[in-house]
Amino acid sequence: MINLKDIKSPQDLNNLSKRDLSDLAVQIRSFLLDNVSSTGGHLSSNLGVVELTLSLHKIFDSPNDKIIWDVGHQGYVHKILTGRQEDFKTLRQLDGMSGFLKASESEHDAFEAGHSSTSISAALGYARAFKLKGVKHKAVAVIGDGALTGGMAFEALNYAGHSNENIIVILNDNEMSISKNVGAVASYLAKARTTTTYDHFKIKFTKILKMIPILGKPIESFLRTLKNSIKQFFVKGMLFEEFGFKYFGVIDGHNIAKMLDVLEHVKDVDGPVLIHVSTTKGKGYHFAEKEPGKYHGVPKFNIAEGIINTSSTMKYQDVVGKELIRLARKHENVVAITAAMPSGTGLTEFSKVCNKQFIDVGIAEQNAVTMAAGLSKEGIKPYVCIYSTFLQRAYDQIVHDVCLQNLDVVFCIDRAGLVGEDGETHHGIFDISYLSHIPNMTLLAPKDRHELSEMVKYSYTFKGPLAIRYPRGNAIEMNKEPLNDMKPEVLYEGSKYCIVAVGNMVQVGLDVCDILKKENIHVTLINPKQLVPMKESLKSILSDYEVIFTIEDHTIVGGYGSYLSSEINRNLIKFALPNQFIEHGNVNLLHKRLGLDAKSIAMSIMEQVRSMNG
Amino acid sequence: MINLKDIKSPQDLNNLSKRDLSDLAVQIRSFLLDNVSSTGGHLSSNLGVVELTLSLHKIFDSPNDKIIWDVGHQGYVHKILTGRQEDFKTLRQLDGMSGFLKASESEHDAFEAGHSSTSISAALGYARAFKLKGVKHKAVAVIGDGALTGGMAFEALNYAGHSNENIIVILNDNEMSISKNVGAVASYLAKARTTTTYDHFKIKFTKILKMIPILGKPIESFLRTLKNSIKQFFVKGMLFEEFGFKYFGVIDGHNIAKMLDVLEHVKDVDGPVLIHVSTTKGKGYHFAEKEPGKYHGVPKFNIAEGIINTSSTMKYQDVVGKELIRLARKHENVVAITAAMPSGTGLTEFSKVCNKQFIDVGIAEQNAVTMAAGLSKEGIKPYVCIYSTFLQRAYDQIVHDVCLQNLDVVFCIDRAGLVGEDGETHHGIFDISYLSHIPNMTLLAPKDRHELSEMVKYSYTFKGPLAIRYPRGNAIEMNKEPLNDMKPEVLYEGSKYCIVAVGNMVQVGLDVCDILKKENIHVTLINPKQLVPMKESLKSILSDYEVIFTIEDHTIVGGYGSYLSSEINRNLIKFALPNQFIEHGNVNLLHKRLGLDAKSIAMSIMEQVRSMNG
Repeated sequence: MINLKDIKSPQDLNNLSKRDLSDLAVQIRSFLLDNVSSTGGHLSSNLGVVELTLSLHKIFDSPNDKIIWDVGHQGYVHKILTGRQEDFKTLRQLDGMSGFLKASESEHDAFEAGHSSTSISAALGYARAFKLKGVKHKAVAVIGDGALTGGMAFEALNYAGHSNENIIVILNDNEMSISKNVGAVASYLAKARTTTTYDHFKIKFTKILKMIPILGKPIESFLRTLKNSIKQFFVKGMLFEEFGFKYFGVIDGHNIAKMLDVLEHVKDVDGPVLIHVSTTKGKGYHFAEKEPGKYHGVPKFNIAEGIINTSSTMKYQDVVGKELIRLARKHENVVAITAAMPSGTGLTEFSKVCNKQFIDVGIAEQNAVTMAAGLSKEGIKPYVCIYSTFLQRAYDQIVHDVCLQNLDVVFCIDRAGLVGEDGETHHGIFDISYLSHIPNMTLLAPKDRHELSEMVKYSYTFKGPLAIRYPRGNAIEMNKEPLNDMKPEVLYEGSKYCIVAVGNMVQVGLDVCDILKKENIHVTLINPKQLVPMKESLKSILSDYEVIFTIEDHTIVGGYGSYLSSEINRNLIKFALPNQFIEHGNVNLLHKRLGLDAKSIAMSIMEQVRSMNG
Repeated sequence: MINLKDIKSPQDLNNLSKRDLSDLAVQIRSFLLDNVSSTGGHLSSNLGVVELTLSLHKIFDSPNDKIIWDVGHQGYVHKILTGRQEDFKTLRQLDGMSGFLKASESEHDAFEAGHSSTSISAALGYARAFKLKGVKHKAVAVIGDGALTGGMAFEALNYAGHSNENIIVILNDNEMSISKNVGAVASYLAKARTTTTYDHFKIKFTKILKMIPILGKPIESFLRTLKNSIKQFFVKGMLFEEFGFKYFGVIDGHNIAKMLDVLEHVKDVDGPVLIHVSTTKGKGYHFAEKEPGKYHGVPKFNIAEGIINTSSTMKYQDVVGKELIRLARKHENVVAITAAMPSGTGLTEFSKVCNKQFIDVGIAEQNAVTMAAGLSKEGIKPYVCIYSTFLQRAYDQIVHDVCLQNLDVVFCIDRAGLVGEDGETHHGIFDISYLSHIPNMTLLAPKDRHELSEMVKYSYTFKGPLAIRYPRGNAIEMNKEPLNDMKPEVLYEGSKYCIVAVGNMVQVGLDVCDILKKENIHVTLINPKQLVPMKESLKSILSDYEVIFTIEDHTIVGGYGSYLSSEINRNLIKFALPNQFIEHGNVNLLHKRLGLDAKSIAMSIMEQVRSMNG
């Protein structure tokens, strides 16, 4: 019998029979369970693509052909087949193997991801490159049904049909993303999975055509026209056909023989092809099949017993969820919006007890934010709960649809700061940079769970766009202090030196002060609460210190330290546009009005120079 | 006869007959031509929606009902009907009326825009708010066929069908956005406009059904099933029906009687409705009908003669277009990508002479950027040419798909800085903020056309993501200096004080130096060329000066001055994450490795304090 250990690269599948591949599938499932249960990681989605991955690597010639995994958390089987079995011991650990695709790990990892809905665009890029270079390789995108709700997937579908690029899209339809899917496309796919097939009608139709001599000429021509139309209609996947794709489906994604047949067939078809594959998340492990959501991302667990729910400590997301329920019960106009992450953002309970005030738009952050803007225009108070890193998708909508119109929208930014095992694409370390410069935006960071609760309460009556950033994981508890209208909190008084720490780093700041105290160095510690715009009271406190230190769990360029540094630096004077949206008008006139013409700048410099010299 | 001057608000349309409305349409066209020809502004799109706007305001009850104009440059007729006829004298001028919708101008401006594809999401927000408040108002989104290629429009369509919100989408189909449309949806719409209607087939089918007695029972039942299927198939707008919309179309958008009929009918239909309206851009002005693109945004012109092409001076976009043609001819692997702006980004000529190396993805910035990433992975050198403000839509894709993978993609960022008359949504004043903090990104700004040329040349061999930001409009010419590997250029030598000016503000800086010279103040002037990351050579130059002044045509927070300030400030020391993508791993371990744990920070502060104290 074939042994999984002997599979070191996809080439090792070349001479295997369907029977061998089926044997491998069994071994792969057991490998996945053994490993993921002892390290933690993504389980359900990987159990679902065992046969699919085997079939793809059997038919396509990676790395010449490119297999592009959307999001990438379903790439474990791909990793197993591309020489990384040994590395599973270090899965998601520091310096260990990534839980996502990574070019530095393997030449078979064609495109890195972490956010959904990018794979078709990437495949289009590869396909166009192959065409330009005159080579015959294939670009294959494997995308889940959940990821299809993301707008950029549609942008790519739309372009693919138009440009007729040679891409193969494998629609891995397991009827859900991480939570239950939403949207018209999801209903559409459900219908496609159950419709009677064209074949059935074809047979009946042929019988009618045989009767034409009885029916006469005009009816004959009518029926012939009809046949072509009906053919198109009964072909499932009309939606994709409308987009210019050749559609094949629905294929049972756990049937290796069928998968190989269809892949072999489409390999040399010209133009964009979509294969609609039906798979079961968690396939082969009964706990995961029953509760695929729970087994999407798992901690270590005992295979025989499954994941045991322990009484969990309160997470930051739960603090927000609870507070929003309180607000929503008190105020009818409160609405909570998530983008396919009700559980991750702590809104599961909210979605049950305040169902009318709950919106899940699916993986569609852009729509979430602009819909919130629309709600706000009509007096509703929307809370947009999205992870820091996923909110990047809606940067333009935050700028234009919320901040330009200065609307009362609250952003609950979960997973701000490092998130740990999910790595590069999931760390929320850019949000201060991409939010702090937007005119009208106010940005808060709580030091602990009490402050987070208070900030959510405070946000209800706040006017204008407000964002609250808080980390992943267990919520710490520190001293209970009132928000005091966001006046900076001084936690330790020293002299000459001052630390300003952001959010959960206030606790780290306290520890730093303790260490320094022992060395007889007394450094003031400040919790600014409101990061942007800087409070005048903070500016005045800081003016007492020679050196300021900032601590933040965020990238250094454009972060809070940068912002503060630039605000208080007296040795660098900036002539730039004010922190507001600038209206229309002739550029020269605008520059003059805003003091950006040569004369205004020269006058200002002159004054400064004279005051410094005098 | 009804006089346009007497229409002060939409209510004034209430008692008008269809004949009156037709009379108004004539007057509005003449009003538009008179005004726009004397101020400049958007022409073609407004001439196209005269009857549509009249019909909407006749049937719907604005401001209770919300009419949401996608992008908003087609809102002039709406402005005429909502009490702003007098303001057209100041159209797009400083302190004058905006060329887009603006809530501060009128309660009838339901939602501000400037970027496309947002209107359906905004309408969804309004509709949900109406439902929550139990009021019966309507939310109407007017969206062009070009805007449908934007991913967020699909996100909204997908959610609308699912949630069954009461929205009415008017698809204003004029077969183009600003340039010719691309994509499968565009082909689809073209087909819808020309397909034989269902009615035609219905008649023939009835004839066959009458013959059933001859054909026998099984065939009867088969034909009945067939009829229902065919009905659905021949209903045009199948694509939208698949999305859960009730589809009406295609309606002649210049036929007021037909428009009123269909709007009256759908007003009280439940759930999402899409009305497919066909209009002609530039309708009623032969020059504009013939060349709608040329008359999209116009300068002042003589109505009788049309726009006379004068020999134009070289614009920055043309410099880029020319240089890219040179590169593409020399190097087969050069590809230029635009998102529906071939002319605005100077690529019209390129698209003709290097057609195989040209890609226009339509209004789909996300797909443009990730497709570029895919191209680059295969050794193609993509130049993504997108306006500064539109590139905001692809922020996440720049971070993840290009910079995380450190790919050789060049961004030619046109319209950086203030653009003038288009105003708030079109000024390119955030790009330094949203790009400078992304790890692996290099950002350049040329002082004039020669430097821009050189930078485009330089970019070809550059490794990693590179962005070049340059302004709208005529390209200035200064001294010709070689790039000298981006070593900062010193244009004027002074002492104690130093100006660092960004891009086109170098010329302003020179003027400032001239003024100051007369006052005997000698200030050094530096052109940094490379903004991010800061060159060590710049840091060393700056260390000679007491005070630094920065000049930039960009917002102050997160701009170049902020960046520089934070880089050279010795009085604020930042503990934060390094400017790189951070890998996966336990958060505590990562913090320790990156020096963000209490002990590391305390040690570092201790050292600093001790060194400062002597």
